[in-house]
Amino acid sequence: MQILDRINSPMDVKKLSEHEMETLAQEIRDGIIKRVNTIGGHLGPDLGIVEATIALHYVFDSPKDKFVFDVSHQVYPHKMLTGRKQGFLDPSYYSKISGYSNPAESEHDHFVIGHTSTSVSLATGMAKARDIKSENYNVIALIGDGSLSGGEAYEGFNNAAELNSNMIIIVNDNEMSIAPNQGGLYKNLKELRETNGTAQNNVFKAIGFEYFYVEEGNNIKTLIQTFEKVKNINHPVVVHIHTLKGKGYKPAEEDKETYHWQLPGFLEPKAAPFEQETYNSITKDFLLAKKQQNEPVVAITAATPGVFEFNSDFRAKMGANYTDVGIAEEHAIAYASGLAKNGAKPVLALMSSFVQRTYDQMSQDLALNNSPATVLIYWGGISNADMTHLCTFDIPLISNIPNIVYLAPTNKEEYLAMLEWSYNQTEHPVFIRVPAAPLVSTGMKDTTDYSILNKFKVIHKGEKIAVIAAGGFFSLGQNVREELSKCGIDATLINPCYLTGVDEEVLESLKDNHSLVITLENGEIDGGFGEKITRFYGDSDMKVLNYGSKKEFTDRVSLDELYNRYRLKKELIVEDIQKILN
Amino acid sequence: MQILDRINSPMDVKKLSEHEMETLAQEIRDGIIKRVNTIGGHLGPDLGIVEATIALHYVFDSPKDKFVFDVSHQVYPHKMLTGRKQGFLDPSYYSKISGYSNPAESEHDHFVIGHTSTSVSLATGMAKARDIKSENYNVIALIGDGSLSGGEAYEGFNNAAELNSNMIIIVNDNEMSIAPNQGGLYKNLKELRETNGTAQNNVFKAIGFEYFYVEEGNNIKTLIQTFEKVKNINHPVVVHIHTLKGKGYKPAEEDKETYHWQLPGFLEPKAAPFEQETYNSITKDFLLAKKQQNEPVVAITAATPGVFEFNSDFRAKMGANYTDVGIAEEHAIAYASGLAKNGAKPVLALMSSFVQRTYDQMSQDLALNNSPATVLIYWGGISNADMTHLCTFDIPLISNIPNIVYLAPTNKEEYLAMLEWSYNQTEHPVFIRVPAAPLVSTGMKDTTDYSILNKFKVIHKGEKIAVIAAGGFFSLGQNVREELSKCGIDATLINPCYLTGVDEEVLESLKDNHSLVITLENGEIDGGFGEKITRFYGDSDMKVLNYGSKKEFTDRVSLDELYNRYRLKKELIVEDIQKILN
Repeated sequence: MQILDRINSPMDVKKLSEHEMETLAQEIRDGIIKRVNTIGGHLGPDLGIVEATIALHYVFDSPKDKFVFDVSHQVYPHKMLTGRKQGFLDPSYYSKISGYSNPAESEHDHFVIGHTSTSVSLATGMAKARDIKSENYNVIALIGDGSLSGGEAYEGFNNAAELNSNMIIIVNDNEMSIAPNQGGLYKNLKELRETNGTAQNNVFKAIGFEYFYVEEGNNIKTLIQTFEKVKNINHPVVVHIHTLKGKGYKPAEEDKETYHWQLPGFLEPKAAPFEQETYNSITKDFLLAKKQQNEPVVAITAATPGVFEFNSDFRAKMGANYTDVGIAEEHAIAYASGLAKNGAKPVLALMSSFVQRTYDQMSQDLALNNSPATVLIYWGGISNADMTHLCTFDIPLISNIPNIVYLAPTNKEEYLAMLEWSYNQTEHPVFIRVPAAPLVSTGMKDTTDYSILNKFKVIHKGEKIAVIAAGGFFSLGQNVREELSKCGIDATLINPCYLTGVDEEVLESLKDNHSLVITLENGEIDGGFGEKITRFYGDSDMKVLNYGSKKEFTDRVSLDELYNRYRLKKELIVEDIQKILN
Repeated sequence: MQILDRINSPMDVKKLSEHEMETLAQEIRDGIIKRVNTIGGHLGPDLGIVEATIALHYVFDSPKDKFVFDVSHQVYPHKMLTGRKQGFLDPSYYSKISGYSNPAESEHDHFVIGHTSTSVSLATGMAKARDIKSENYNVIALIGDGSLSGGEAYEGFNNAAELNSNMIIIVNDNEMSIAPNQGGLYKNLKELRETNGTAQNNVFKAIGFEYFYVEEGNNIKTLIQTFEKVKNINHPVVVHIHTLKGKGYKPAEEDKETYHWQLPGFLEPKAAPFEQETYNSITKDFLLAKKQQNEPVVAITAATPGVFEFNSDFRAKMGANYTDVGIAEEHAIAYASGLAKNGAKPVLALMSSFVQRTYDQMSQDLALNNSPATVLIYWGGISNADMTHLCTFDIPLISNIPNIVYLAPTNKEEYLAMLEWSYNQTEHPVFIRVPAAPLVSTGMKDTTDYSILNKFKVIHKGEKIAVIAAGGFFSLGQNVREELSKCGIDATLINPCYLTGVDEEVLESLKDNHSLVITLENGEIDGGFGEKITRFYGDSDMKVLNYGSKKEFTDRVSLDELYNRYRLKKELIVEDIQKILN
């Protein structure tokens, strides 16, 4: 009989003794480790917040009191205490409970959250709504030290400080972001930790918060004592708790970056991975070669070096030519613009889902200034991701900004040629959508001159039907062409290379002996690349079908289901074509 | 003979005596006041920074030393000292020099800048480029206290603090944003001012900067002494200078908000404006009525209440139901989401150009959560604005985000009906593009049920040609229809109301007796509304022409020239139509 068996809601936590709560903490850890080992997920941050979550539910009264968990990297223990433990104890139920805060699962969650640095702003809105409706309860925002580097978090703190009412911000300081923290702020957190919260300079006090420090952030009793002090307080406070990321699983305590998030199977010893060429490895080789040639290259990441395999070896070799700006994508873009304008060669790597955090910087700091920075967009495309981490919106987001060149390579040689061109040119901000797929190599050096913008490559000249297949969907285009050839149609195949414009000459020439154009792009159709082709043909007799994803948020839907839904399979596309031809 | 006559570059400033510099300050002020009175522009911030600019050019060596001016609201004196004084002294030359930092004008400007909170990030990039190229000079970022509320500024400070090299940040504290400052940070600035920079809590020191305070921020001698102390310093420093916004023009000193920016003719006494109904006035009336009904309405602005005429009278009446979040658009959206999710009724007003600063928050905090907030987008459309303040990108930006409903009213009654519907519904985040035009009234209450999404209004059923004219371009659609009727064509006229989807039923029905559809939208065509219509007809015989602005940054180009360039005139559109019909 486990303690967890008795926990069906936070009410049950309140009945436990201190000793039982400590046992409960261990049971929660076991559940987390087993779940992550089976389906993957966030490990270190969840292991570190177990005691604090128990203490919070012991002291506060959720859902009357409102918890808002920043980025949801630390939400598993909360889920286990709020009616969702089955999602952590029963493997057949794992996939029913997401890894992120989700109101559809429980009244104890108030928002779907998966991007960083939002909790304080969201909680400030909740607190203000409470106040103008003359209601009375606690609003508690939890935010990790890593999330504090994001500008939205700062904007939230700055405004939360102005509330003349209850607002409790728990700063969960585990001395780590996803990777090591970056920024002046973190020296202050260190000072505060080293002085038991009494350092002369205190950034939280400076902007107007009452401040509490808990050194033993994994001690349930101490946490409860502090939370009881701030419960029902009538002004904004920060409770800074010092926790151990990965607590209770030694490898995660020792290698915090590796165990921040894990793929399934991490408990089993693994063979060393077979060294093979990937888009990640050739990107790193490219950057290291520039560094060795004493080029003023600066490789930049915004707190997610692991995504690009910018590992410690790579970082050490790059030295001063590597910058991790922390979770601060806005700064990353403006910083890249400053570097480029002053003669350095910035290459910024961003995940598609996170480039969303920088539209104004892409437009104003980069595009308006025609700063020749290179931005690599990773993971762009349709996937079975959580709804918070979809990578289908970057083409509409980026490609409608003037002056930006957005390239979509289809293989290794093309990618390297684009990267080299982008690196050396001084005219445009260039984005490259790194293929989110196993590396494809033609074995032949690509000698295209990419300075001739919007020049499509006609891979095969056929007739009747033209398939324009961009980036990651080029192979789908090849398959469609092959399928059509089985029906006796010799279709034209085009690799557009550019997502930011159309090749009017090529498109015009298609009118001669084609009646239908198919566009394929691995992302949202609305506002995307294909619609530009369709518009070009608006005044002509050419028919056009655009393929890509629908304008929707999907949540962990399998790729197969999505490809069926969006008709992104060669046989479905050929079916559509035949309907039009007949 | 003026001192200014002798100043053709910063080198000439270095030759002046202290007394001559004081005279120069007065001459600069005179020039600024006359220019703004003639062509409009930023007044208060420029008047306040005159002495500091003289002192900076006296001490530092631009362009070898690099100045980056945040948002450019304080760049006029710099322009006058760097070869561009004619743009402030010769009325026939005024329009040749923009009101914003611009490298095309001078080697002393390094970026086009017009949006806030970017200078520290840009300068950090410049400093890093200097360091890896082993160059040696000062990089100086200027930023106003108002700009410090923006998250990008904080991200910049946090990263700048990590440079182990020269980086000088001048915080120009004139105790004002565009409107009064908002946020806990400003209490700290006040403490610092009141203690001559010695307050115990110091936000700049807390995040790792050496700190200097200059109380007499309009005293050239004191400023020079301090700047000389930090010149060539080998680590990041903040120089906090206390200046008087509007200095030297009494009305601007006394009413800092009104004189932050002025239209031409402010020197002449004005008659009280004729009280007439505008989209601004009916918006305010709507909000005040909700407040009076004890509704949980919260009107929100991000530091630009003047744009919406949220004047002091309105703010006083709204009381706790009004929030200015400062220059913090990201927070504004997340805050609105928190309010809406907790039962309040947020109505957030944003300028089209500034909604760009919030894409990720619109997507994640608002849309993914289906938070029923209302966001009013002002000034959307083609204009003769500076390239930094174009309002043509909001449709592609917003309308491709899932779950958002973006409405485009064409007259007063429609706007109020949409606003009322949005306010009361609980299903969707709703954006409304407030017409950027004189108010049009039909005199008839609009009883449309806007909960039936994407339902277009067929205003006139004709044949052959259908004109789908959205929002601000509805009247252009009416004109095109009239022009066509002169040629004997009875065109269909449609008001789509929604920018986020298409009415498939209406579009399908047009196929019966139409061969050409025209779409008109007041904004960028790429990724916009019209392309969705074109895509719908991609597999049919319908021809479609999309009208709107091109994907480009335009800089103070007259509306007439733009309308010609984009063929946004009834006669040009009819010309295009006839080409297709023949």
